[in-house]
Formats: sequence, C-alpha cells, structure tokens
Amino acid sequence: MEKIVEQALLYDFYGKLLTQHQKNIYEDVILNDYSLSEIAEQNGISRQGVHDLVKRCNKILHDYEDKLHLVEKFNETKDMVNKINQLTKDYMQSQDMTCIEEIQKISNHIVENF
Amino acid sequence: MEKIVEQALLYDFYGKLLTQHQKNIYEDVILNDYSLSEIAEQNGISRQGVHDLVKRCNKILHDYEDKLHLVEKFNETKDMVNKINQLTKDYMQSQDMTCIEEIQKISNHIVENF
Repeated sequence: MEKIVEQALLYDFYGKLLTQHQKNIYEDVILNDYSLSEIAEQNGISRQGVHDLVKRCNKILHDYEDKLHLVEKFNETKDMVNKINQLTKDYMQSQDMTCIEEIQKISNHIVENF
Repeated sequence: MEKIVEQALLYDFYGKLLTQHQKNIYEDVILNDYSLSEIAEQNGISRQGVHDLVKRCNKILHDYEDKLHLVEKFNETKDMVNKINQLTKDYMQSQDMTCIEEIQKISNHIVENF
C-alpha cells in the first residue's frame, strides 16, 4: 500500500486515540498536505518538532495495528465484498448460477470469520 | 446485546491492549466462566481484587469502543453481509432479479462506507 494511504487509513481507524494536539498536527501533515515549515510556524514549534511529532504518531498508530490487526481485517473483508459486487455484474451478463453460489460462499465465509 | 456476549466481543477486538495479567484473569471470568473465588485462590489475590480487576478491564474495553466504534462498525457490516447471504437464498427460490440488484446495492454501500 502507498505509504500516505496507509497512514491515512491507520489514522482513520486509530486516530481517536491520539491527543487533540497530535491530531491537529498529524491531520495538517498527512491529510491536508501542508509543509512542515508552515505547520511549525502556525503552531509555534520547530520544524524538527513537527517532524518528531508525526514520527511519534506513526509509531503509535502502527503499534495499535500490530496489536489489533483491525485495518488488515477490514481490508480483507472489503476485498471480499468487492468480489461479491463484481460477481453480481458477472451474473447479470452471463446468467451463470455459479456466480450466485460463489456470492453465497463468500458471504458465509465473512459472517463465520467475523 | 446480552452483556456477556458484548464483553466477549469487546475483548475479542481490544483485549490485546490489556496487560498479560489482566488478560489471564479476564479470560477466566468472562470466557472460561470460573467463579471469582476460584480465580482469587489460583492467583493469590482477594475475591474483591478479581472483581475490581474485571470491572477495570470492562471500563478500558468500553472506553476504546466509545472512541473507535469498531465493534459497532463490524456489526453493521456483518448484518449487511448476512442480508446478502439471505438474498442469494431468496434468489435461488424465486429467480427474482431484484434480489441481485439489492445485493449489488448493499455491496456497493459497504465498499463505499468502509
């Protein structure tokens, strides 16, 4: 996964566990794409301070994922639901009943492994 | 949701964030259904100590869910995938194409809202 997308996804899942100060700065860097210098000036801290804070936040977010694996679990489920979506299109074109059976199999698998 | 099921589900999602000591005792109470007295004796702590630890763990797990809402999100997705599964059965009986359209709609919704 592209690094910035991965960071945004981790933030989406675990960002609420950061402090308000960490969230403000992290969002400006990762989501709003401001430069470190701009953010440093706006917050009255050094450029290095911003850099360190972002690094620290990335570590916190990664540590949560290393323990909980919830982003991984969600991504796996999303891939399977995408496959179900594709199978409905395939079925509409082909009327091939194996598509429906496959949807049933995948949806069973998701429900049983949740 | 029944309280014990809810506790087990919260533990399944966030339990890895507890300490090893908390996990051992929490599992014995919630998952293995030992009595507080048995656990107290095995761990050389008071019955009240076990009770307090479980209460504290419940609070920690609930606090994570209050912030992250990931159990809620997973449950919503699971309900929708269950609905997809039911719709494949309905379609096999009725051959009603609105079932397929509904599967497509639900799977789109899941993917877009992840």
